[in-house]
Amino acid sequence: MKALQEKIEKEGVILSETVLKVNSFLNHQIDPFLMQEIGKEFAKRFQKDGITKILTLESSGIAPSLMTALELNVPLVFARKKKSLTLNEGVLTAKVYSFTKQEENEITVSGEFLHKDDRVLVIDDFLANGQAALGLIDIVREAGAEFVGLGIVIEKVFQNGGQMLREKGIRIESLAPIRSLENGAVSFAKEEELVR
Amino acid sequence: MKALQEKIEKEGVILSETVLKVNSFLNHQIDPFLMQEIGKEFAKRFQKDGITKILTLESSGIAPSLMTALELNVPLVFARKKKSLTLNEGVLTAKVYSFTKQEENEITVSGEFLHKDDRVLVIDDFLANGQAALGLIDIVREAGAEFVGLGIVIEKVFQNGGQMLREKGIRIESLAPIRSLENGAVSFAKEEELVR
Repeated sequence: MKALQEKIEKEGVILSETVLKVNSFLNHQIDPFLMQEIGKEFAKRFQKDGITKILTLESSGIAPSLMTALELNVPLVFARKKKSLTLNEGVLTAKVYSFTKQEENEITVSGEFLHKDDRVLVIDDFLANGQAALGLIDIVREAGAEFVGLGIVIEKVFQNGGQMLREKGIRIESLAPIRSLENGAVSFAKEEELVR
Repeated sequence: MKALQEKIEKEGVILSETVLKVNSFLNHQIDPFLMQEIGKEFAKRFQKDGITKILTLESSGIAPSLMTALELNVPLVFARKKKSLTLNEGVLTAKVYSFTKQEENEITVSGEFLHKDDRVLVIDDFLANGQAALGLIDIVREAGAEFVGLGIVIEKVFQNGGQMLREKGIRIESLAPIRSLENGAVSFAKEEELVR
């Protein structure tokens, strides 16, 4: 997605060969117009898939997911990273290890918002090792709902998550697949190059 | 705001005389069209205030804030509830005690996204004891920016936050001020009745 890739080139801060900070428009400050464009792009790609619900993970997944939900005319559910005191029976859970934060979180979704007849699009801001995506997909399946595909804003192709998921047959729509952050520059992959 | 108050009456779950669960459209599952209406309403109320930035708190503040940001054509910043490993120098912080979760969080905003010339609208999903709002306003002032007003989706008028803040001269736009949750029913206050 051209506008997103240009924004990453312009405002992304490369902290190391594996860490890209996009705090100025996605992870901390949010550009609402870019989110709207991202929402339209995901909606276009999943328009014909009969999506009935979007599932994401707090907090950075919420903005792109909300704009996609608006375009697809479906509700959005965000998984929480720890148990809330007011969530109780019928809670769906998965364990997710975050390499960035070096901690394991239990992510939870209340079972009342994912049903057997739901067709679910999972959206997340980043795909790196694929642990968060796997956890979200587990939750969809735990609910007995159908997992349709994964929408990713920024994929770090040089980490193994995308390849691991594609080898499982999972459909990934990846709007900004980054091949490398070496030598202080962002190098994008073409989507058609990604392992299917 | 009529559509919001009707949604609360229809889908809100009264857990006790002080706890209202709105997980089906605001705090866990999100209704994107209602968020769009909320965004339009906040934007209308703050249209003439020269807002340059919206500040909210993860996670439930993000959706209504994003739609308001889109309408007002400004960026949104969400405060984080604990320090992130990739936030470093120039971090603005405030301590916020959550009565619901019975824990104190440090909320943080990177100083690079709030400037002295910013005019900031603070938005949050709930106003109860006012601790989160106070923390967010502290952060705006710590940045040297101008705090313009507070937009609240649901105010629990029977708790003391709104009164405490209004007595400090803070402007609050409260879309669904709830007078009481007694006897298993939601009773709304009229906005003009709220202490100024």
